[in-house]
Amino acid sequence: MQTIRPRAREWGLAIGSLPTGPHNAITDVGGVLVGHSTVWHGDGASAARAGVTAILPHGGDLMHDRVAAASVVLNGCGELTGSAWVNESGLLEVPILLTDTLSVGRVHDAAITWCLDRYPQLGIEDDVVTPVVGECDNSFLNDARGRHVRQEHVLQALNGASGGAVAEGSVGAGTGMTSYEFKGGIGTASRVSESGYTVGVLLNANHGRRHELLMRGVRIGDHIQNRQLERFNDGSIIIVVATDAPLDSRQLGRLARRSFLGLARTGAISHSASGDFCMAFSTSNRTLWPVEGQKPQLREAIALVHDRAIDPLFAAVEEATEEAAINVLFASDTVVGRSGNTAHGLPLDEIRKLF
Amino acid sequence: MQTIRPRAREWGLAIGSLPTGPHNAITDVGGVLVGHSTVWHGDGASAARAGVTAILPHGGDLMHDRVAAASVVLNGCGELTGSAWVNESGLLEVPILLTDTLSVGRVHDAAITWCLDRYPQLGIEDDVVTPVVGECDNSFLNDARGRHVRQEHVLQALNGASGGAVAEGSVGAGTGMTSYEFKGGIGTASRVSESGYTVGVLLNANHGRRHELLMRGVRIGDHIQNRQLERFNDGSIIIVVATDAPLDSRQLGRLARRSFLGLARTGAISHSASGDFCMAFSTSNRTLWPVEGQKPQLREAIALVHDRAIDPLFAAVEEATEEAAINVLFASDTVVGRSGNTAHGLPLDEIRKLF
Amino acid sequence: MQTIRPRAREWGLAIGSLPTGPHNAITDVGGVLVGHSTVWHGDGASAARAGVTAILPHGGDLMHDRVAAASVVLNGCGELTGSAWVNESGLLEVPILLTDTLSVGRVHDAAITWCLDRYPQLGIEDDVVTPVVGECDNSFLNDARGRHVRQEHVLQALNGASGGAVAEGSVGAGTGMTSYEFKGGIGTASRVSESGYTVGVLLNANHGRRHELLMRGVRIGDHIQNRQLERFNDGSIIIVVATDAPLDSRQLGRLARRSFLGLARTGAISHSASGDFCMAFSTSNRTLWPVEGQKPQLREAIALVHDRAIDPLFAAVEEATEEAAINVLFASDTVVGRSGNTAHGLPLDEIRKLF
Amino acid sequence: MQTIRPRAREWGLAIGSLPTGPHNAITDVGGVLVGHSTVWHGDGASAARAGVTAILPHGGDLMHDRVAAASVVLNGCGELTGSAWVNESGLLEVPILLTDTLSVGRVHDAAITWCLDRYPQLGIEDDVVTPVVGECDNSFLNDARGRHVRQEHVLQALNGASGGAVAEGSVGAGTGMTSYEFKGGIGTASRVSESGYTVGVLLNANHGRRHELLMRGVRIGDHIQNRQLERFNDGSIIIVVATDAPLDSRQLGRLARRSFLGLARTGAISHSASGDFCMAFSTSNRTLWPVEGQKPQLREAIALVHDRAIDPLFAAVEEATEEAAINVLFASDTVVGRSGNTAHGLPLDEIRKLF
Repeated sequence: MQTIRPRAREWGLAIGSLPTGPHNAITDVGGVLVGHSTVWHGDGASAARAGVTAILPHGGDLMHDRVAAASVVLNGCGELTGSAWVNESGLLEVPILLTDTLSVGRVHDAAITWCLDRYPQLGIEDDVVTPVVGECDNSFLNDARGRHVRQEHVLQALNGASGGAVAEGSVGAGTGMTSYEFKGGIGTASRVSESGYTVGVLLNANHGRRHELLMRGVRIGDHIQNRQLERFNDGSIIIVVATDAPLDSRQLGRLARRSFLGLARTGAISHSASGDFCMAFSTSNRTLWPVEGQKPQLREAIALVHDRAIDPLFAAVEEATEEAAINVLFASDTVVGRSGNTAHGLPLDEIRKLF
Repeated sequence: MQTIRPRAREWGLAIGSLPTGPHNAITDVGGVLVGHSTVWHGDGASAARAGVTAILPHGGDLMHDRVAAASVVLNGCGELTGSAWVNESGLLEVPILLTDTLSVGRVHDAAITWCLDRYPQLGIEDDVVTPVVGECDNSFLNDARGRHVRQEHVLQALNGASGGAVAEGSVGAGTGMTSYEFKGGIGTASRVSESGYTVGVLLNANHGRRHELLMRGVRIGDHIQNRQLERFNDGSIIIVVATDAPLDSRQLGRLARRSFLGLARTGAISHSASGDFCMAFSTSNRTLWPVEGQKPQLREAIALVHDRAIDPLFAAVEEATEEAAINVLFASDTVVGRSGNTAHGLPLDEIRKLF
Repeated sequence: MQTIRPRAREWGLAIGSLPTGPHNAITDVGGVLVGHSTVWHGDGASAARAGVTAILPHGGDLMHDRVAAASVVLNGCGELTGSAWVNESGLLEVPILLTDTLSVGRVHDAAITWCLDRYPQLGIEDDVVTPVVGECDNSFLNDARGRHVRQEHVLQALNGASGGAVAEGSVGAGTGMTSYEFKGGIGTASRVSESGYTVGVLLNANHGRRHELLMRGVRIGDHIQNRQLERFNDGSIIIVVATDAPLDSRQLGRLARRSFLGLARTGAISHSASGDFCMAFSTSNRTLWPVEGQKPQLREAIALVHDRAIDPLFAAVEEATEEAAINVLFASDTVVGRSGNTAHGLPLDEIRKLF
Repeated sequence: MQTIRPRAREWGLAIGSLPTGPHNAITDVGGVLVGHSTVWHGDGASAARAGVTAILPHGGDLMHDRVAAASVVLNGCGELTGSAWVNESGLLEVPILLTDTLSVGRVHDAAITWCLDRYPQLGIEDDVVTPVVGECDNSFLNDARGRHVRQEHVLQALNGASGGAVAEGSVGAGTGMTSYEFKGGIGTASRVSESGYTVGVLLNANHGRRHELLMRGVRIGDHIQNRQLERFNDGSIIIVVATDAPLDSRQLGRLARRSFLGLARTGAISHSASGDFCMAFSTSNRTLWPVEGQKPQLREAIALVHDRAIDPLFAAVEEATEEAAINVLFASDTVVGRSGNTAHGLPLDEIRKLF
């Protein structure tokens, strides 16, 4: 569905100074899995340009081997279900699922199906769960009213999730998204911090006006003023941060807040009607969770990063978020969607002269 | 499904000193509508004891005539979707729906169906929406894995919502709930504050241990120690506060926090695994919301309650919440549910001697 | 300054079912120190009825051996300085000081004096600090404008702090306070939780109307309607929770929120103009903090209480807070203060018949 | 104490595209007053390089004619007293004072002196107040332990506050600050938003490493690597946002959060030990506050900006914050302070070639 386009860094536009992980992707954090399911069919009023993206903190028993996590909000006019639970418990016990606004219910329900299949005692002898589903509004390109994302797509994204390179742009939940009035969607990047820990970011970008866009300080809209969207509605961005640094929920909230500083460097002003959320988790700080009724007195001890040594992780989150948001634009080719609405891919040839 | 039982106040157990509204119910706040859809069929492992309860701030065009609102969390191990949006915008633009944990996705999706039907331009020329769905875990009495709540039930609750007296106990979302190890579910109450404004509360109670229960200071568990649940899992409580006092989101958050103080007087300690949320709205502080693209410069002016005069509303919220939580127990008769699991109704004859 | 009055429990009014620690005081948490400095002189318009109370998490090097901590707000119309730092770092590195509203600056400055004396490199080679000072408004009984609390009083409270029994009522920061329109001030209590950990509470109570007061469910104002304050202004309450349970900041925030549920059982509605804060800390979860410039990679590992086993601590916080707030009223005899303003002590003989 | 240096915009480095107000300063918001008191004496270990900056929302009776306000935290390892009160009440009733960390108590106390002088009934028939004091740590250049800021300096800043042009750089609270390892301190800027409202920002910048600094996307540290600080400790930044747009507290919180996005574009990563706060207020949304005891039922009605039309204000806040943070560096000449510690002014000649 998209031509092969270079990533920003390959093209010559690297962000910051820290080294990337091997794939420059969230999957550089060991054990993290990503799966996309793209829903693309039809044209005209019923064009489906939608999908689901799943991020799993690890491939094991998420419900009973939970990762430390936190969820923060920059601007709340959107949805990231499960956030209250994550922040109260400091833990994440389900996959993170991204999709479009009107599909949240169906994706949420499909996530429960997936959990019921894996956990035959869920809701009997064991706890229930609250899925984590984040959304952006793709109704410019997608027949959102058609709710074309179905349970099978969610299960496909979850069951097909893998490590290694991550497809970007118009794929999975990013299929129908726009960013800075270009074609948007999924982007990812990673950094190895000075302290040796890896930070990975994956985001679904669907936000921003053309004149706001900054790439390494260059105001792109000063140079490319055509091919804007015929109709703009404030979008959203969901950011997922993963790290192998041993951090607790409080510290992960601190990392998550920094993702917005990295995002700001791409020009994001965080529009009023936007849903700008970040969830961060650590694959190294696990909590074994017993079935309902068992009450272990203590958690296993783990040495966490000292707050005195956390700044390198902040810097890594910011660089990775900024590059992931730029990678979105490099990856995404022009898409014609609902009723012929068109989001143009960032014209790489035209911006060449700017760098 | 339940015998007629007296409400606490009729029985002789009134809370506090303020007068109630005509129905001692959330619907005493003019325009507020409540609808229940009860799902009750089968026995044994597949017994359905579930449902949906809908609260509508008014019967008009919710999406374009929004009410001021706020959502607060006492303990976040649960879900009240849409909360981030409500708190960012300070407004509520959809019905509030209550159900069980594993039905959240389906109820969420059905709420979108309801919105799509009402708003043909939603997702085309008009904004998308994020439903508000709160949950408690009824898996002790209900075959939660069966997800017996379907779209038709949600639409029934929404379309059948009305003013006037509100059914309590094992009805709608309260059907399969337990409270203080008695049969729990829906409760409601109202107060007319000293300042003349009405405050109404509706809650779905599914929380607490027997020994924690207080009724007007009497520790019930000291007297009724039998008929406890065979198996206890921390439940949740979702509280909805409505008022006709003209308040903004900040002030409604203040009211919502007070609901927990009223709840505490029934003995609630707010268990670690409980999802204890409150959403409050004002029917008197409306914001007209234009379709996407239109950008009115100013909102209509409205005189809000001065914070100097807000204490009477705090007192009203606390009394109404406490009585609503007690009303739950009076209304709810014994229910036999999944696999023969039984939640006993509060034995009114046995507690008679205590008051 | 006050006659000897029995504590609530000695008098026959015990709260809840959990056992207390040896002193039924915050100092039952091993290592915690409390110091009072009472300022009481003069009559008429310049009557000083004020003071300082200091709570130290331990007697060692607080700045470099920090305790896990969290600060929460029920109603923010007051002040608890240092809260942002505590919540960001998850740590407390200074004593907690309580005083009256207009003395906050002087107490804050005296706390810095105390730190400068102890830490000769503070502000040179070592970090600076932000004191924690909480206030209530004692201007009904005290010539608050006179700011009679001076540096010497603060140093006296800090340097004289000790373990063991804690004076209650009109002492230290509690000297000029009122509670439920009786004489208020300092109260303390402790509980040994089911899990064996100790929870201690100390609070400075200066809040509430007579008709709101509940003692074990009995509405005292229905029986004692005379001797109310000639002039009521919404007061405040600062609650300090200590525990030897190994908890992190997130968990301590959860405990702190529960203190408000215990407080609610004494009838508190949390008035609009009240400053109702709680800070909680754990003496068992320490973080060694190096001097500026040193950057340890990891903190020492410690096994924390599993959230599955935290409910007994919630119950202990709630019982201890409720009893501490009742202890205030038992301890406090009538005080005549500024311009002859009088706060009456709870008349123990009159309430005898109610229990 | 400093040579005349051009402001960034005069020099040719303007940020963004919106027009500035007449002074490109926070005082472009009508009625806002700023006063500085600079404390500069001595050399060696006891060198005083300190001061106070006062921002008054208007020159009238602040306590009884309050402005809508909100306070937000990006990173809490600092102090902005009074924030809880501002956020609970949604109002600001005192001046905002900026100073250094160890002077907070004295400045707080002096603010109370100032209030006592203006309000003879404060603490008698009228409410008490909680000052707003924000701090940054200037101990690299200043003998912070000496606490050289005295009451007279605070009163001088308050009583000398005026509209019109605002001195920047090493003045008032900015005297001893450093920013990106250059000499830092006070900066200000303003924007006239598309909707015609003015937004003004004043900040005290004391944060950041050299290699982090971005000026319109140029990484300055890649070009100027000498003249860094001999010793770096994480600093802080306090940002004040004023506007004449009629906004309530919720909306002002939204503006305040955007200030951090503007700040991020100067490269700020928000270090772990930094205290990064923003307080925003609206001079157009006033609440008359009666003396204690009077309880007006309603506030005067006012038409607020519709959230649909708030994005232009977000953009204005971000541009003004970014430019104010850059203005700091342009205004600040080299300062030699405590023990000969030196912070170099941004070498304007060396960066000329970069733009």
